[in-house]
Amino acid sequence: MTIQARLSLVAAALFSLAACGEATQSDTQTSGTANAAERAPIGIVIHGGAGTITRENMTPEREAAFTAALTAALDAGYEILDAGGDSMDAVIAAIQLMEEEPLFNAGRGAVYTYDGGHELDASLMHGGTLDAGAVSGVRTVRSPIALAREVMENSRHVMLSAAGAEQFAVEQGLELVDNSYFNTEHRFEQLQRALELLREQDRTGDHIANADWDSAFDMGTVGAVALDQQGNIVAGTSTGGMTAKRYNRIGDSPIIGAGTWADNASCGVSATGHGEYFIRYNVSAQICSRVKYLGESIEAAGNYVIHEELLPAGGTGGVIIMDAQGNVSMPFNTEGMYRGARTSRLGTVIGIYSEEE
Amino acid sequence: MTIQARLSLVAAALFSLAACGEATQSDTQTSGTANAAERAPIGIVIHGGAGTITRENMTPEREAAFTAALTAALDAGYEILDAGGDSMDAVIAAIQLMEEEPLFNAGRGAVYTYDGGHELDASLMHGGTLDAGAVSGVRTVRSPIALAREVMENSRHVMLSAAGAEQFAVEQGLELVDNSYFNTEHRFEQLQRALELLREQDRTGDHIANADWDSAFDMGTVGAVALDQQGNIVAGTSTGGMTAKRYNRIGDSPIIGAGTWADNASCGVSATGHGEYFIRYNVSAQICSRVKYLGESIEAAGNYVIHEELLPAGGTGGVIIMDAQGNVSMPFNTEGMYRGARTSRLGTVIGIYSEEE
Repeated sequence: MTIQARLSLVAAALFSLAACGEATQSDTQTSGTANAAERAPIGIVIHGGAGTITRENMTPEREAAFTAALTAALDAGYEILDAGGDSMDAVIAAIQLMEEEPLFNAGRGAVYTYDGGHELDASLMHGGTLDAGAVSGVRTVRSPIALAREVMENSRHVMLSAAGAEQFAVEQGLELVDNSYFNTEHRFEQLQRALELLREQDRTGDHIANADWDSAFDMGTVGAVALDQQGNIVAGTSTGGMTAKRYNRIGDSPIIGAGTWADNASCGVSATGHGEYFIRYNVSAQICSRVKYLGESIEAAGNYVIHEELLPAGGTGGVIIMDAQGNVSMPFNTEGMYRGARTSRLGTVIGIYSEEE
Repeated sequence: MTIQARLSLVAAALFSLAACGEATQSDTQTSGTANAAERAPIGIVIHGGAGTITRENMTPEREAAFTAALTAALDAGYEILDAGGDSMDAVIAAIQLMEEEPLFNAGRGAVYTYDGGHELDASLMHGGTLDAGAVSGVRTVRSPIALAREVMENSRHVMLSAAGAEQFAVEQGLELVDNSYFNTEHRFEQLQRALELLREQDRTGDHIANADWDSAFDMGTVGAVALDQQGNIVAGTSTGGMTAKRYNRIGDSPIIGAGTWADNASCGVSATGHGEYFIRYNVSAQICSRVKYLGESIEAAGNYVIHEELLPAGGTGGVIIMDAQGNVSMPFNTEGMYRGARTSRLGTVIGIYSEEE
C-alpha cells in the first residue's frame, strides 16, 4: 500500500473517530497475541506537533518520514504495554524515539533560542499516584523526558530547571551531550528567518503578524499518553519550545496542568501548540476537569477546550487524550497535527492533516 | 483593644465565616466612604504563609508584628479598590508591602537555597482576560511580583526564568538589588538547621521525618486576590520557595493553575504550602473548576481540595479565595495561616491560628 493510500485509509478512520463520539474504528489490525476483548484495554496515543501542515506544503518523502517515525514510536510504546509493561515505560520509550528523531522539536531537532542555543523542557505525570516530574531550560541532557522521570522518582521536588536540573542529571547518571548535539540545519535556518522578523519588528515597532510568523518555527513538540493493563494512565511531553525564545522563557510543556496532566479518574493529556495560551487556559487539566466534574466524554471535553476556548482567544494547537477505558481523542485547531494512536480496541491510526479526503 | 482581644474578636468572625457557607460576618467597620450596599462589591484577601503556627510558639510581639504587616497590606490594596482603582494595582500594592517585610518568605526575608543564596518566584493572573505573567529563579530583582506584571504586560511570553528574567527586568527598568539584599539572620539560621538535617539524611540514608523538618523553614509565601468595581478578579503570589532548595527547583508559586489562578467566571486563588503537592494537585485551578463546573461555593470547593484531597495525600498548606460577588474563603490544613481580608461587605478580618477560642 502506498503511503498516500494508507493515509487516506487512516484519515477515514480518524474522521469516524472524530465524528462518532467514542472511538470504535480501526484500520490496521494490531499484532495482538490474545483476544483483546478479554483483556483490560491498553493503548498509547502520541503527537509530534501541530501547525500549518497541509498537503500543499508536504512532500511524499516527508510524509513518509513522519508516518514512519510516528509508527515506530507507537509500536515501541505499545509493545511494552502488550507485554504487560507499565504505561510509564511505554510513554518514555515512545517519547525517547521522537526526541532522537530530528523531524521533531524535541531532543535532537529542537528549535534554537534567540541566542543560538537550545533549551529543552519536559514533564511527566502518573495518573494513579498523581506523581509528577518536570524540567525546564535543560541544555546538556540528551533525553529531557528521562530527566523528568528522575525528578519524579528520585528527588523531593517536582520541577527542576537550568543548570540545577543538569547537576541533578549528572548525579543520576544520565547521558549528557554538548548543546550542539541538538543542532540541525533546518532549525538553524528557521532561527535566521525568525530573527529577521524580530529585527524588522524592532525597526518598525509593528508586532509580527501571525501570518508572517511561520508556525513551522515552533512546530514539533512531542508527547505521549498511555494506558496499561493495571489501568494506570501516564502522560508526558518533551519540547525545544519556541524558535527565538528569549529570557529563559518557559512554555507549557513542563507545566503540570498546562502541557501535561494525568489522572486515572478522568484522563491523560499531552499538548502541543502556542504554549503561552496553553498555560493561561490550563489546557490539559481543564480537559480532565470537564470529564471529571461535568461527565463529558474526552472527545467533548477536548473539543470544547481546543475549539471553543482556545481558538477564539487566538491559541493554536492541539492535544492528545486517553481515558481509562482506552478511548482516544486528538483534537486540534490548526491545519494539521502529527498524531497517532495504537490501542487494543482501535488498532493503529495515524494522521497528519485536518481535513483528509 | 489589645492585640489578643482583637484577634479573639477576629477569630470569632473567621469561625463564623468558616461555618456558615457564605461570608457575612464583620468585626471591624471599614472606613467606607459610600453606602457599600449600593456599590459593586470590592475586596482583597491576602496570606503570608501556612504552617505550624500555634499560640504556644508565638510571642505577643511577633503576633502584633504579623497583624500590623497584614493590616498594612490589606489597607494598601483596599484603598486602591475603594478609590475605583483596579484589582491588578491592589494586588501588586499588597504583595509589594509583604515582599519588603522580612517577616515573610518573599522578597526581603526570603529563605536561602542549599547554596546559600536566594531564588525568588512569583506569578500573577487577571481573571477577566486570563492574561498571566510569571517568573522563577530570580536573584536580583527587588520586587518579583512587579517583574511578573512586566512579563504579563510587556513580553510575548507568560513565564521567564533565572538570568533571562533578570535581563528582561533590566530592559523594563525595574529596580535591581544584590542577592544579599534578601538576607536575614533568621532565615540564615534556618538554613543551617536545614543543612544539618540534610547532611544527617546523607549520612544515614533515612529521609527526613516531617516532624523534624520545621515547617517554619519554608513558611511565609505571600499572596493576594482582589476584586475591583469593574468585577475583575486578580490573583498573585510571591515567594522565596523552600529553605535549602536545590537544583534550581521551581515550586508552585510561579505555576499558573498551581499557586495562582484567576477567572472572573469562578474565582481567584493564591496558595501557600508544600509546593510540590500544590503542583501535583493543580490546586488553584482545581478549586475554581469545582466552582465553575460543579457549582460549588468557593468555601465548599476550597475545603474539599485542601482537606479532602491535599491532606490525605500529605500536602500541607492553604489558600485564599475570592469570587466575583466578593465572598472570601481562607481554608488551610495546617495549625495556622497568616491571613486577612478586607471587603466592602465584611470589613476587615485577620487570622493567624486554626482553632481560636
